[in-house]
Amino acid sequence: MTDTPSRGPGSSRRPKKTDMMSEEERNAYHAQKMAKKKAAREKILATKTEERGLLIVHTGKGKGKSTAAFGMVFRAIGHGFKVGIVQFVKGKWGTGERDVLERFSDQVTIKAMGEGFTWDTQDRARDIAAARAAWQEARRMIADESYRMVLLDELNICLRYDYLDLDEVVQTLKTKPRDTHVIVTGRNAREELIEIADLVTEMTQVKHPFRAGVKAQPGIEF
Amino acid sequence: MTDTPSRGPGSSRRPKKTDMMSEEERNAYHAQKMAKKKAAREKILATKTEERGLLIVHTGKGKGKSTAAFGMVFRAIGHGFKVGIVQFVKGKWGTGERDVLERFSDQVTIKAMGEGFTWDTQDRARDIAAARAAWQEARRMIADESYRMVLLDELNICLRYDYLDLDEVVQTLKTKPRDTHVIVTGRNAREELIEIADLVTEMTQVKHPFRAGVKAQPGIEF
Repeated sequence: MTDTPSRGPGSSRRPKKTDMMSEEERNAYHAQKMAKKKAAREKILATKTEERGLLIVHTGKGKGKSTAAFGMVFRAIGHGFKVGIVQFVKGKWGTGERDVLERFSDQVTIKAMGEGFTWDTQDRARDIAAARAAWQEARRMIADESYRMVLLDELNICLRYDYLDLDEVVQTLKTKPRDTHVIVTGRNAREELIEIADLVTEMTQVKHPFRAGVKAQPGIEF
Repeated sequence: MTDTPSRGPGSSRRPKKTDMMSEEERNAYHAQKMAKKKAAREKILATKTEERGLLIVHTGKGKGKSTAAFGMVFRAIGHGFKVGIVQFVKGKWGTGERDVLERFSDQVTIKAMGEGFTWDTQDRARDIAAARAAWQEARRMIADESYRMVLLDELNICLRYDYLDLDEVVQTLKTKPRDTHVIVTGRNAREELIEIADLVTEMTQVKHPFRAGVKAQPGIEF
């Protein structure tokens, strides 16, 4: 960000019209502005009446794609939902994640079908076989309506490398049971998937500790 | 995305040089490419030797900022860490989150100090008092080295509305105990915070179900 003379030293904030107001004026201005915001919000919410399972995609190069999905799994656990997880890349989830999920084994089923990152195996035929086995598992979970949430972690990487048939995956997700939430993670989400999704978030990396020589560590990376 | 004639119908993927290869050639090409990728990755990892607590910021207008932080909290729980959470906006976390966190009350301390979204209260003086009380709680948690992770949920909104002194917040975060991870969430993160952070992710909204008339629902929004 470039500095402009109108900004005070040590502050990145643009001058606002409230800067010149007294505390009293500022409070009144704030109350008025927030009342407007509240009314606008309520008007929007009133039009949202449908409740159904969503197809959610977390993509982008930044961190937080799987972690946010992991957070949603715990929210679902809190609601008493049954959750299915298929990990398309084995070994990506760390001991922290596995240990805490195992405490909810009555609600959560995890299938780790992959064979490690594809740059570890360097064996395309084996990767394809593993991806297809994982996909069969995913299809079974999606078809089973007792699962209210199914997380397909790193499915995007399998679609990117053409390990799975894109049309078949799209067709399965499009025809999922009405109340089931399906979350797909991984960078480079295919356009066809984004098109049929209800909620798509892109995680963008602004700053990463690797640049400063800090290594991956428990609680953060795994 | 505009369509180009070189793309087949129903496919968003650009043609790759592997498209013309036989399965065998493609497998060999893949193995070679992945071996290179692995070597590059290992070279980078070898330079990353430092282990320390990070200052992490989740910002942007998209979803997943708090949810990814919530996921990190569960990862930390899995590692047996003690975690402190200060919610600067009360009522934002739903029953799903609270219910599942309460099952780990031996490891997790939650302080919900805010008074609802600022557009609900419309009372700036009360918001400021609540924000300052929450910040005192946050300072205590950060100073207590038994906490390995401290989540300051929606702190950014308080900084944006000048409810807290930015310099004081920056100073406290800059001088946090070495091993403590601090996570700050909320849109519109201030530049000064991004500057001192180790890891900054921006969540960008690509597609949101509100647009399609779908309302907030358990497991997804709360």
